[in-house]
Amino acid sequence: MKTLFHNARILTMVDDKIIEGDLVIIDARIAYIGKNSSDFAPFDRIVECDKNLLMPGFKNAHAHSAMVFLRGKADDVKLQEWLFDIVFPREALLNPSDVYHLNKVAYLEYLSSGITACFDHYFFPLEGAKAAEEMGMRTLLLATYDQKYMQGEDLLKNYRYFNDKKDGLVRYILGFHAEYTTDEALLEGSKESLKLLKCPFYTHISETKKEVEECVGRHGKTPLKFLYDEGLFKYGGGGFHCVHLIDEEIEIASKNKLNIISCPASNLKLASGVAPLTKFLKHNINIALGTDGPAGNNGLDMFKEMYLAATLQKIKCQDPSAISAFDVLKMATVNAAKAMLLDEADVLAVNKYADIIMIDLSKPNMQPINNILTNLVYSGSKDNVKLTMINGKILYENGQYYINEKIEDIYKKAQEVTERLEK
Amino acid sequence: MKTLFHNARILTMVDDKIIEGDLVIIDARIAYIGKNSSDFAPFDRIVECDKNLLMPGFKNAHAHSAMVFLRGKADDVKLQEWLFDIVFPREALLNPSDVYHLNKVAYLEYLSSGITACFDHYFFPLEGAKAAEEMGMRTLLLATYDQKYMQGEDLLKNYRYFNDKKDGLVRYILGFHAEYTTDEALLEGSKESLKLLKCPFYTHISETKKEVEECVGRHGKTPLKFLYDEGLFKYGGGGFHCVHLIDEEIEIASKNKLNIISCPASNLKLASGVAPLTKFLKHNINIALGTDGPAGNNGLDMFKEMYLAATLQKIKCQDPSAISAFDVLKMATVNAAKAMLLDEADVLAVNKYADIIMIDLSKPNMQPINNILTNLVYSGSKDNVKLTMINGKILYENGQYYINEKIEDIYKKAQEVTERLEK
Repeated sequence: MKTLFHNARILTMVDDKIIEGDLVIIDARIAYIGKNSSDFAPFDRIVECDKNLLMPGFKNAHAHSAMVFLRGKADDVKLQEWLFDIVFPREALLNPSDVYHLNKVAYLEYLSSGITACFDHYFFPLEGAKAAEEMGMRTLLLATYDQKYMQGEDLLKNYRYFNDKKDGLVRYILGFHAEYTTDEALLEGSKESLKLLKCPFYTHISETKKEVEECVGRHGKTPLKFLYDEGLFKYGGGGFHCVHLIDEEIEIASKNKLNIISCPASNLKLASGVAPLTKFLKHNINIALGTDGPAGNNGLDMFKEMYLAATLQKIKCQDPSAISAFDVLKMATVNAAKAMLLDEADVLAVNKYADIIMIDLSKPNMQPINNILTNLVYSGSKDNVKLTMINGKILYENGQYYINEKIEDIYKKAQEVTERLEK
Repeated sequence: MKTLFHNARILTMVDDKIIEGDLVIIDARIAYIGKNSSDFAPFDRIVECDKNLLMPGFKNAHAHSAMVFLRGKADDVKLQEWLFDIVFPREALLNPSDVYHLNKVAYLEYLSSGITACFDHYFFPLEGAKAAEEMGMRTLLLATYDQKYMQGEDLLKNYRYFNDKKDGLVRYILGFHAEYTTDEALLEGSKESLKLLKCPFYTHISETKKEVEECVGRHGKTPLKFLYDEGLFKYGGGGFHCVHLIDEEIEIASKNKLNIISCPASNLKLASGVAPLTKFLKHNINIALGTDGPAGNNGLDMFKEMYLAATLQKIKCQDPSAISAFDVLKMATVNAAKAMLLDEADVLAVNKYADIIMIDLSKPNMQPINNILTNLVYSGSKDNVKLTMINGKILYENGQYYINEKIEDIYKKAQEVTERLEK
C-alpha cells in the first residue's frame, strides 16, 4: 500500500521548521519526505493536502481510557468525594468486557483530536489491548502485578507476547497505581516482577499535597524518593502528574533520566495544583503531556493540554515568556513518544511509523497565516484535525471514522455499561 | 420564513432543565417550543435534530475582533513588549477598511464556535458595524468619544441610527479603552457624551496589577472607584477584565448593578491573573465571559473560556466545587446577554430572537450521555457546534458557512492587510 500526501506544509518535529513538499508512505512507515515524490509513483492513494499541515500525531502519555463511563458523573465535587463516593464504588462493579467496550469510545475521541497513541493505565489491560488492536490505536499498556490475577510469570508471558511482536500496535510495560494504594505484598510483587521484566516502571506520583503528606507519614519520605529508594526505577520510567515534587526529587528525576507526565487539565479541574514545568525544563527532564481519565478532565483533547501546559506556567511564574509554544508541542509529541518507548513514531522521518495528523489551516482560528507553531498551541482546536493516520492507515478524515465498526454500536454498548454501573 | 427544528433536546437557559421537543422559528424570532409543532405546518425548512441539543448561542462579551492580524505575532513575550513593541506600532498603521476586512475573519470564527453575538471594542467601530451587518453577526459596538473624529453630537447621531432601528443587528454604546490611556480631554468629552446618550458605559478595568498601582499614583484611587466617582457609571455598564478589584470596588459594582466581563484565557496567557469570580458571585454581580482579542488569547472560543472560568476558580479557591458548570454556562449566555443589553436574545423562549446553536451530542467527547450540562463546560469543544443561527438565519451548518461571500476572499483580504502592517 503506497500513499502520497501531496502539497503539504510539514512540521517534522525534528526541529521547529516547517517545510513544503510531499510525504510518501509505504505500508506502515514513512518512505519519503521532499519535492520529488513522483519517483515513487504510482500510488494506491493520493491525499491532496492543499498546503495544510502534516505533523506527528499527538501522544497521550497518561490515560485511563475506560473511565468514559464516569464523564459528567463527578463534576464540581471535592476530590475525596469524587474518588471514594463516586469513582471507586462504580469501578468495583466493572467486568473485563466493560473495559473493552468503554475504551473504544475514548479511542474515537483520540482519533478526532489527533491523538495517535496512548499510554493507558486501567483495570483489565488485556481487554484494552484487544480494543486497541481492533481499532488500530497505538497503545502502551501499564500492567500491574496483582496477587490474584497477574503474578510475575504471567506479566512476563504478556510482556513477551506484546513486545516481541514485530510492528505490533500494543506494547506492554510495568507499573502500579500509586504509593498510597500499595501494600507490602504489591510492593514486593512489583519488585519481583521488575526483576523478571527489566523494564521501565511508571506510577502516579505526588498528584496532591495530601498524598505527599501521607507518604511522608508512612515512610518518612516523599513518594518519588521512596519509590526510587525501593529500586522501582532501576530500568527507568517515571511518574504521572508530579505536581508536588520537592527539589531533591527533581534532582533524582533529572539524574536518572526519569520521565514526567504532566496532566494540566486534570490537575486544574480537581484543584490538585500546577506542576512546576519550567523547573523540570531547567533540569533537562523529559516532560510529556497526558489527558488523564475522562472522569477528571473531562475531554480527551491534547489541544487543551497544550494550551494549559503553556499558559498555566505563564501565570505560575507571572511571566508570559515562561515557556514557549515549541516546548509544549514537543511535550505533546516527541517527548511523549520518548516516555512511551515509541522512538519509531516520534518524528516525521524516513522509516518512522506513519503516525501522522493533518491540521486544517483554512479554519478561521488559524488565519491569517502568521505563526503556525504558536497558533497550534494557543489557537488550535480539535476542529482543526482534518485527518488522523496510525501505522499508515487513515482512521479519521473530515469528521468520518474509517474503522470496522459502526460508531452507533460502540456508543450503545458504552451507554449500556454506564447505565448498568449506575444501578 | 418558517423553520422547524425537529426532535431536539432543548436547553432554554431559563433554568438548567433539558426538555425534549421541537422549536419553531418565524422570521427572526422563536414562535414555539414544545411537542405540537405540527400546528405551525407547513414549514419552509425542516432541520432534523436527531436529539442533538439546541441552546442559546454564546455571547462574546468582550472582543477586539479586528486584532486577528496580530494572532501569532506576539506570543510568549512579556506584556509591556507585547503592547508597546508589537501591538501599538502596528495598530497605528490601520486604515478604516482594514477593520472591515479583519473583523470578518473573527466573525467566521465566532460562527464556527457557536458565538451569535459579540461586544466589539476597537478603532473605527462603524467599519465593524458594516462588516457585522453584511455577515449577519449580532454586535454591540463600543464607541468612544474622540476629539478628532467623534464628538458628542456624532456619537448621539450614530447612537440613534443604530439603536432606534427596529430589529437591527448592530447596537451602539459608550465607553473608552481604559483609565490609563485617558487624558483630561477624553475624560471630559466622555462625560459630556454620556450626558447626551444616557447609556451604560464600559471600559477595561484593573486588568493588571501595574495598571491599578499607576491609577492609585495618579488619582489616589483604584480604577473602578475613580471612574465611578467621575460619574461614568451613572447609567450602568461595567468593566472588562476586573482581575484586581479591591473589596470596596466589588461593593460598588454590586450596589450599582455593574457588569463584570471576565476574560480568563487572555488573563492567563498574558499572566495578568485570575479574577475572583466566586467573590463576584457571592456579591450577586452579573458576570459575563469574553474572549478578548485574538492577539492575546489567541483563539476566539467560548468553550475554552467556559472551561477556564470554571477550572481556574477551582484552583484559585483550592476547591473543585468552587463554581458550578451551570453558573459558567450562564456567564457565556444569559449573563452576557444582560451585560450586552440583549434581553431579546438571552434565552430560548417565544418571541425572543432566534440566536440558536445546535450542539452535536454524537461526537465521542459527549458520550456516554451522562450529564449534558457539565459535559458542555468540561468536555465540549467547537467541534461540537453543528449549527449556528443568528436572527433566524442559519449562517453555519456542518462546517459550511452560509454567507454572501467566499471564505477564500475574506482570508485573502485579511492576509493582505496583515502583511502590509508588517512592513
